[in-house]
Amino acid sequence: MRDTIGVIGGGQLARMMIPAAVNLGLNIKVLEEAEGMSAELAATGVGDYRDLETVLAFARTVDVVTFDHEHVPQAVLRELVAQGIQVHPGPDALQYAQDKLLMRQRLAELGLPMPDWAAIESAEDLGDFLDAHGGRAVVKTARGGYDGKGVRVVSDAHEADDWFQALAEDGRGGTLLVEEFVAFRRELAQLVARRPSGELGIWPVVETVQRGGVCAEVVAPAPNPVGRLPEVASEIASTIASGLGVTGVLAVELFETTDERLLVNELAMRPHNSGHWTIDGSTTSQFEQHLRAVLDLPLGATGNRDPWSVMVNILGGPEEGSLQDRFAEVFAAHPTVKVHAYGKQPRPGRKVGHVTACGDDLDEVAYEARGAASIFGD
Amino acid sequence: MRDTIGVIGGGQLARMMIPAAVNLGLNIKVLEEAEGMSAELAATGVGDYRDLETVLAFARTVDVVTFDHEHVPQAVLRELVAQGIQVHPGPDALQYAQDKLLMRQRLAELGLPMPDWAAIESAEDLGDFLDAHGGRAVVKTARGGYDGKGVRVVSDAHEADDWFQALAEDGRGGTLLVEEFVAFRRELAQLVARRPSGELGIWPVVETVQRGGVCAEVVAPAPNPVGRLPEVASEIASTIASGLGVTGVLAVELFETTDERLLVNELAMRPHNSGHWTIDGSTTSQFEQHLRAVLDLPLGATGNRDPWSVMVNILGGPEEGSLQDRFAEVFAAHPTVKVHAYGKQPRPGRKVGHVTACGDDLDEVAYEARGAASIFGD
Repeated sequence: MRDTIGVIGGGQLARMMIPAAVNLGLNIKVLEEAEGMSAELAATGVGDYRDLETVLAFARTVDVVTFDHEHVPQAVLRELVAQGIQVHPGPDALQYAQDKLLMRQRLAELGLPMPDWAAIESAEDLGDFLDAHGGRAVVKTARGGYDGKGVRVVSDAHEADDWFQALAEDGRGGTLLVEEFVAFRRELAQLVARRPSGELGIWPVVETVQRGGVCAEVVAPAPNPVGRLPEVASEIASTIASGLGVTGVLAVELFETTDERLLVNELAMRPHNSGHWTIDGSTTSQFEQHLRAVLDLPLGATGNRDPWSVMVNILGGPEEGSLQDRFAEVFAAHPTVKVHAYGKQPRPGRKVGHVTACGDDLDEVAYEARGAASIFGD
Repeated sequence: MRDTIGVIGGGQLARMMIPAAVNLGLNIKVLEEAEGMSAELAATGVGDYRDLETVLAFARTVDVVTFDHEHVPQAVLRELVAQGIQVHPGPDALQYAQDKLLMRQRLAELGLPMPDWAAIESAEDLGDFLDAHGGRAVVKTARGGYDGKGVRVVSDAHEADDWFQALAEDGRGGTLLVEEFVAFRRELAQLVARRPSGELGIWPVVETVQRGGVCAEVVAPAPNPVGRLPEVASEIASTIASGLGVTGVLAVELFETTDERLLVNELAMRPHNSGHWTIDGSTTSQFEQHLRAVLDLPLGATGNRDPWSVMVNILGGPEEGSLQDRFAEVFAAHPTVKVHAYGKQPRPGRKVGHVTACGDDLDEVAYEARGAASIFGD
């Protein structure tokens, strides 16, 4: 059987694939951007993922190529495929994670519920959209944004002038995405995995709490769902995974509106922060499932192991020293909490780890997870 | 904090420490006996664990030395300690895992329940012991036995003559251990972890099923315990861990006799086959706990996550091909089962992996685990 997985990118998502690969007896190789990254243990190469020769040389040492991030250029991806290399997710799917305008157009074709949106090319376009949507909107660059970057809430037609200008100078055309500012009750995420042969694995929908545009906390499953919310979230993610031909893990970020609709916010075609709870809280972790999916193996069960799991990110970490310096205190105070450290230097705002607690009582589980994270300097 | 763990020996126990280390953001380095062993991913050295210079050179690259097996000679261990290297478990404890006669003597001093035993130096001694114990007994070499090797059931005084002779020729003196042949209802194992500072972490006692002297299956917790059996098992293992100064994980193999006594059979001072279920079935796996313990960090919670876990070893594996060749069939039929493959070539009788199922119903859990293992050619 094909049993060697190559991961492009050496961040924590690649790192968290290592335990899954080790457990299954699979080989894992990582092409990291620089030495000493989070997934260093499995790194067999260092180089620029935008460079075709670098990526090709790496890809020839593995059975299937997958990703820590969505930034490998289409031209590189398509050449890998042309050379017969297995790439999951493939370029046809990944383009929708790489370009938010393409994504909105495709999801519209699939009839999926979304915030009102438009492609805009000028301040005048933006002004028209603002006028039609209560004077407030969200402008996004189509490409290159993550964790709140490339996203701006605006209430004036000229608040995106600098982006229009930068895009024009960049020679990439001047189109931005503008979206309705959604009055949401909360944010949710629906994680799904899909095999090339079509099988889907669907975890329970979760609630995500963002701070400053960055995921801070995840509660699984999403508490107090109204009506058929879990089923609808699952149907939306399934339609996207199948409709876009995603292989591997897909995360669909959703708004639950104050008037009880679900709207698709963002997509990620890889294991995702909203799924870290699955390592400890689900029968099959998103990382194991991703490996199964990209190898086109039958998917694992996606039920939650306990009624509740709460995952809290460690953002920044201690002001001095390492996460490990806090282990004695965290472990003594929170013996049931699972600690995940990414082997990254603490730095303000940086995702350096996460903690997960699981159990029968949501208040208790949240208390444990938040308490442990706070000792790490969250 | 000290955060680099060095493991001597590259087998599956070292391999299964890798996910635990990756999760906690710890560095792990392995000194393997030969290239391409089970723990290859973390191997930073290849060499003979009996060679002081090899072991010293490796030990100087890590913060604490621990083990995949108990075979590092006392002279090597004591020199490491003399040079100020942290070694867990240390030589004072490990000697009791290395020499079964020493172990019996020390456990007797601690007043622990054991089969009747004696140190014998001749066929005459063995004859006397047989006469006093109904004509049947178990003879063991004090050193070097595992998985049923170095153990022989005898009913004649001359059935150990070859071992006496080999020991005499070896120049190591001619003493063997003889033990009462115990009429046992079943075999149990009690796993415990101990920090250098004394804290103990105690998992539920489990039932182990041996075939041909090799562990085939583990049920956690041990079903239908009589009276205070779980408490007594826990007390026995705690007394041994503290009394022998064990650091890291200790496995105590026990006989439950037909007259409802618990007798200590064997000890292992490392993660143990009887604890593999903890990876999927306990809040803290034996591998994570071992790392916490050897770093003298507070131990994790040891409760079982589901009422029942059943672990079945994959012994030998498929007659042709690899374990991975069977993944499609196993995963499709058993989506809740966790598969662990050790990256070893299938060979008759060899432990090449294990599977674990967890859940509310013991019959169902056992059915799933045994079914998955049987597809692998168990």
